[in-house]
Amino acid sequence: MSPPPVTAENIADLATGTLFGALEDPALNSMNFLNEVAIHYPDAIPLAAGRPSEEFFDLEDVHRYLRAFCRYLADELGRTEEQVRRTVLQYGRTKGIIHELVAENLRLDEGIAIDPESVVVTAGCQEAMFLVLRALRADERDVLLAVSPAYVGLTGAARLVDLPVRPVRTGERGIDLDDLVAVIRRERAAGRRPRACYVVPDFANPSGLSLDVATRRRLLEVAAEEDILLIEDNPYGLFHGDADRIPTLKALDEGRRVVYLGSFAKSVLPGARVGYAVADQRVVGADGVVGLFADQLSKIKSMLTVNTSPIAQAVVGGKLLAHGCRLTGATAPERQLYDRNLRHLVAGLAERFPPGTGVTWTVPTGGFFVVVTVPFVVDDALLERSARDYGVLWTPMGHFYDDSSEVRALRLSCSVVSVDRIDRGLDRLAALINDRPG
Amino acid sequence: MSPPPVTAENIADLATGTLFGALEDPALNSMNFLNEVAIHYPDAIPLAAGRPSEEFFDLEDVHRYLRAFCRYLADELGRTEEQVRRTVLQYGRTKGIIHELVAENLRLDEGIAIDPESVVVTAGCQEAMFLVLRALRADERDVLLAVSPAYVGLTGAARLVDLPVRPVRTGERGIDLDDLVAVIRRERAAGRRPRACYVVPDFANPSGLSLDVATRRRLLEVAAEEDILLIEDNPYGLFHGDADRIPTLKALDEGRRVVYLGSFAKSVLPGARVGYAVADQRVVGADGVVGLFADQLSKIKSMLTVNTSPIAQAVVGGKLLAHGCRLTGATAPERQLYDRNLRHLVAGLAERFPPGTGVTWTVPTGGFFVVVTVPFVVDDALLERSARDYGVLWTPMGHFYDDSSEVRALRLSCSVVSVDRIDRGLDRLAALINDRPG
Repeated sequence: MSPPPVTAENIADLATGTLFGALEDPALNSMNFLNEVAIHYPDAIPLAAGRPSEEFFDLEDVHRYLRAFCRYLADELGRTEEQVRRTVLQYGRTKGIIHELVAENLRLDEGIAIDPESVVVTAGCQEAMFLVLRALRADERDVLLAVSPAYVGLTGAARLVDLPVRPVRTGERGIDLDDLVAVIRRERAAGRRPRACYVVPDFANPSGLSLDVATRRRLLEVAAEEDILLIEDNPYGLFHGDADRIPTLKALDEGRRVVYLGSFAKSVLPGARVGYAVADQRVVGADGVVGLFADQLSKIKSMLTVNTSPIAQAVVGGKLLAHGCRLTGATAPERQLYDRNLRHLVAGLAERFPPGTGVTWTVPTGGFFVVVTVPFVVDDALLERSARDYGVLWTPMGHFYDDSSEVRALRLSCSVVSVDRIDRGLDRLAALINDRPG
Repeated sequence: MSPPPVTAENIADLATGTLFGALEDPALNSMNFLNEVAIHYPDAIPLAAGRPSEEFFDLEDVHRYLRAFCRYLADELGRTEEQVRRTVLQYGRTKGIIHELVAENLRLDEGIAIDPESVVVTAGCQEAMFLVLRALRADERDVLLAVSPAYVGLTGAARLVDLPVRPVRTGERGIDLDDLVAVIRRERAAGRRPRACYVVPDFANPSGLSLDVATRRRLLEVAAEEDILLIEDNPYGLFHGDADRIPTLKALDEGRRVVYLGSFAKSVLPGARVGYAVADQRVVGADGVVGLFADQLSKIKSMLTVNTSPIAQAVVGGKLLAHGCRLTGATAPERQLYDRNLRHLVAGLAERFPPGTGVTWTVPTGGFFVVVTVPFVVDDALLERSARDYGVLWTPMGHFYDDSSEVRALRLSCSVVSVDRIDRGLDRLAALINDRPG
C-alpha cells in the first residue's frame, strides 16, 4: 500500500482555525507583507520605510552612553560600584530605571510637569500602547476610538486584547471633533463604552497632519465633557521643520485626561527599543486605596516583559545625560535632514504633477510622511507591480484603514533616502501613475 | 459653602472596577507584594530572591560582548560597516538577529536540532510565554494545563489573555501523568479545549523537582495520544550540580509536540532581557499555505514589542560567540556556586530540623529552590512578621497555587546569598518556626 499523499492537512501540527483569530487579520499581517515586498525588491527606492535616518548612527555612541549612565549612577546618585553593576545588569524596577531622566526631559523639551513615578519605561512605545489598551479593556463592551487613518501598530495592539477600534474622521484640522462626539454617543447608545481616543497630534503617521492649538484645547474639553481618556502618541514632535512647536496635549492637560506615549526610537536609537507611557491618572482600587494608573500598567508589564532591558535603558539615559536631558538640540541635525527631505519631496511632487493631473498631496510642516491621492484604486498588487516594474516602494493607504474599502491614496516617506534618491523615486512613481493602472 | 470633602470617589480619575479585571487578581499582584516586602526590609536575609548571583557580573563584559558580536557580523558574515551599524542600531527582524547562534547553542548544549527560522528571540522569556499563550487562546473554550505549584509568571501571562489555567498534580515524579490525562478528559467532557501543558522539567520553580527520562518520554507519548502541546520552560537546566544532565523534552521530541522556552537571564545577564521560543510546529493557514508556528508568534510580537532590542541581543550573541556557542563551560562557575549553596542550604535544614519536628523539605539536585513544609499555615502576614521580627525573607508557597487554599509550605532560594548568610538566614527561620506561629 502506498502512503497517503502529503497534504496540508496531514503535515500540519496546528491549523490557524484553532489559533487566535486575529492571526489571520489584515492588521497583524500588514507589517509582514510590507517588509516582504521590501526584502524581495532590495534595489527599489524605499519611499515606504518609516524608520529613522541612519546617517548619524555610531556604534561608539552605545559604549559612550553606557559609560555616561554608569558615571551618573556613581557620581550623581552616589551608588557604590556594586550597586551600579546591579542596576544595569540585574533584574530591576518594573517601571524602569531612567524614569527621572524621562520626567526631566519632558519638563525641558515639552513643558510637561509630571511625577517620575507616573512614568513606565517600556520595550519600545509599542509595548506602552499594549499596556494601556490591556488595562482599559475590561469586557466586550469596551471600544477604542482612533483618528482614521491610523498607525497600524495601534490597530494591531487593539486586536491582541480584542478591543474594537472605531474610526474618527480626520477632517480639516487633524481630528473632526463633531465626528468624535457623534461616535462616542453612537457607541454609548449601542451599550458600548468608549474608553479613549488615540491621536497623534504632531505630524501623524500616516496623514502628516498636525492639530493646531485651538483644536488641541477643544479636544481636551470634549474628552472631559464626554468622559473619555486621550492617548497621545508623539514619535515625531521633535521633527517640526522650521515651524514653531505646538504644546502637546499632555502639556495642556489640566485634568489628567491624557495618557502620553513617548518613543526614543527616532530621537536616540531604534536599536535600544525604549519607549514609555506617562500615566498620572489616579486609580481607586477595590480597597479604596488611590494609586497611579502607571502602577496598574506596571502590573501588566510584570507579566509581559518583567522589566525593560536596563542595558538598553542605560544607553538612552546616557544620551539624555550627555545633552542635559534636552533632546531638542541633540536632534537638530536629524530635524534639518528630515525637513530638507520633506521639502524636496513636496517640491518634487509639484514639478511632476501639475494641476489637472488629478494627483494631489498633503503638505506637512514636519515629520516623515506625505499622503498622495491619485485617480485610481491603490492596492497591494499595485505596490508589488511598482516594486517589480518601476523600482519604487511606497505604502498603500489601505493599510491604515481598519476596513477593506478601496482607497485611492498612498503614503510616501522621506526619512531614509537622499535627495537624489527622492528624485529618482519620484520619477519612477510618476511613470507608474502616468501609465494609469487599472 | 465649603468644598466637598476629598474622598476616593471624587479624586479618582479611574476606578479599578472599570479596568481589566485581572488587575485585582492575586497573580498580577504577587510579584509587587513580594518586591515591596523585600524593599521595606532591606536588611532581611533574602532567601526569597530567585534572581541570579551577582558575583560574576562585570560591566566591561557588556562592552566586550557588543564588540565581539559586531566583529562576527563583519568578519564571519561579511557585512559592511554600514550593515553592521544598521543591524545593531536600527529596527530589525521581528524574530531576532541571534537566531542562528541560539540554534547552534541548542545543538551543542542541549542536543536540540532545529531550523533557526523556528526561533523567536523575545524581550525576556516572559514575552515568549505571552506570545505562545496569546496564539493558542482562540476563544473562551480554550484552557491551559500547568504542573502545580507553578511559576506565577505563567499564571500572570495566562491572565493577560483570559486563558484559564487548570492545575495538574506534581506527584512523585514531577508530573502526575494519570492526573494529566484525567484533567484533559474532564475538560474535554465539559466542552473545553486543553491546548497545552506547561512544565519545567529541570529543577522547577518553585518545587525544585526534575522529571526523570522515563517520565519525559511517557509525557511526550501522552501529549501525542491526547493531542496537546507541551510548553517546556528551561531556565535552570544548566545548573545541575554534579548530577548528569537529562535530555530536555525538546531533545526527545520527535513529533513537534514541544514549544521550548529559553532564557539567557541566568546564563548570560538578566539586564539584557533576552529569551526565546522555539516553535517548529507546522501551521496551515486558511489559504492552505504551511508555515512555522514561530511565524505566527512573530506576528503577535510585531504588535507587542516590534522586535527585541538588537543591542541587548548583541550582548547575548557576543557571549555565545566568546564561548563557541556553548554555555555549559561558560556557566560552570555559576553552577558550582549554586550547587555549593544548595547543598549548604539542605544540610543546614537537616541540622536545624531533626526528625520529629514536623518540618520536611525537598532535596533537589540542582536549580535554586527548596520547598520546606511546616506544621502550620504559611501566609503573607507570616512573611511580613518574618521580615520584621526575624530578619529573613522567603516566599509563601501559596503564591504558586492558582487558588486561595491554605498552604503549609514556603520556598527558599539560595542564588544570591553566601553560605554565611544562608546559615544566619536558617537560624532566623528556625527561630520563627520554633516560635510556632498560629
